[in-house]
Amino acid sequence: MRILIIGASGTIGKRLTPALEGKHEIIRAGRTSGDVQVDITSEPSIKEMFQQVNNIDACVCIAASGPLDDFATLTETQLLEDLKGKLFGQINVVLIGQHSLNNNGSFTLTSGIFADVPHKGVTGGGIVSGALHSFVLSASIELPRGIRINAVSPGLAADSAKEFRHLFPALPPVPMQKLVDAYTASIEGNHNGQIFRVYE
Amino acid sequence: MRILIIGASGTIGKRLTPALEGKHEIIRAGRTSGDVQVDITSEPSIKEMFQQVNNIDACVCIAASGPLDDFATLTETQLLEDLKGKLFGQINVVLIGQHSLNNNGSFTLTSGIFADVPHKGVTGGGIVSGALHSFVLSASIELPRGIRINAVSPGLAADSAKEFRHLFPALPPVPMQKLVDAYTASIEGNHNGQIFRVYE
Repeated sequence: MRILIIGASGTIGKRLTPALEGKHEIIRAGRTSGDVQVDITSEPSIKEMFQQVNNIDACVCIAASGPLDDFATLTETQLLEDLKGKLFGQINVVLIGQHSLNNNGSFTLTSGIFADVPHKGVTGGGIVSGALHSFVLSASIELPRGIRINAVSPGLAADSAKEFRHLFPALPPVPMQKLVDAYTASIEGNHNGQIFRVYE
Repeated sequence: MRILIIGASGTIGKRLTPALEGKHEIIRAGRTSGDVQVDITSEPSIKEMFQQVNNIDACVCIAASGPLDDFATLTETQLLEDLKGKLFGQINVVLIGQHSLNNNGSFTLTSGIFADVPHKGVTGGGIVSGALHSFVLSASIELPRGIRINAVSPGLAADSAKEFRHLFPALPPVPMQKLVDAYTASIEGNHNGQIFRVYE
């Protein structure tokens, strides 16, 4: 398969890319690094990527998470900012990429535990991931030409634990191999409209 | 209890309001009708409503649903339009109203079946409701002074079946009494962070 990984050099991408590399042809996409540059907050940039890179069987999007928020003073403007990258960035990859992917290809997006398990200070993150889950359900019955779509919903990735564990002491770190396995299952399996919840 | 019902004259509001009226004091809010006027797509309008109406124990928001969409040509701009009223309108009612509601008060929002059960042409509606569910989870652990929050997620309301059944032939209409019961349970019970899924 030819696999486009958006966020190949991020925390999860760094583990997933070498795991897939032996069996598949990998195209790395990143904001500043990789084989092709893309800013997923920009529709024109996503369109340009899909013009540069073609004949794609699987498109994986591993987006970064957003900032913490303060519920007592939270505003629509702040929430819209949260939605911009991780929600609309990934949605745009699908809405634009649906016309480019090969028949029977697949999208794998990245949501997160806060869709289902709330945590103080993560209202924006929860909304983004909850919306993504419902988007994946909808897209799974809408996508043309046998194209599938799933999301991986990670808890706290073990490789980020050092940086973020103090913010989320109640979240047990998830072994990176479990995350790699979930993305691989979505890419190589026949799942469609599935949310792979990878946390204890 | 003093209960503010936003959307009191809508399909569900028309049934819920008389059911609560014997036992509670009801303040009806609507875009053009009711005791107080509010446009929930406008933050200043919501602020004004909470300045006019005080001493509220329960705030119920029964928002309208959005238009159908075409996945092959769907854009971020259209989705943002869908989010504006039903998602951000309701979120703003909570973010602004949290500072006005009485101690141990409650919010009851309205999502919808498409969060969990996808249907062609309802990607925007699905995203809105999925995001609302995660918002309710987050808000349930963030709201101050014992204030609770829940959502009712209706299927096709029986009173709308005539108008909408042809669009959703696979959805069995939900008896209005079941919807009234769910809102009443959210208002009068002790539930917090619960999604009342009212469909077969």
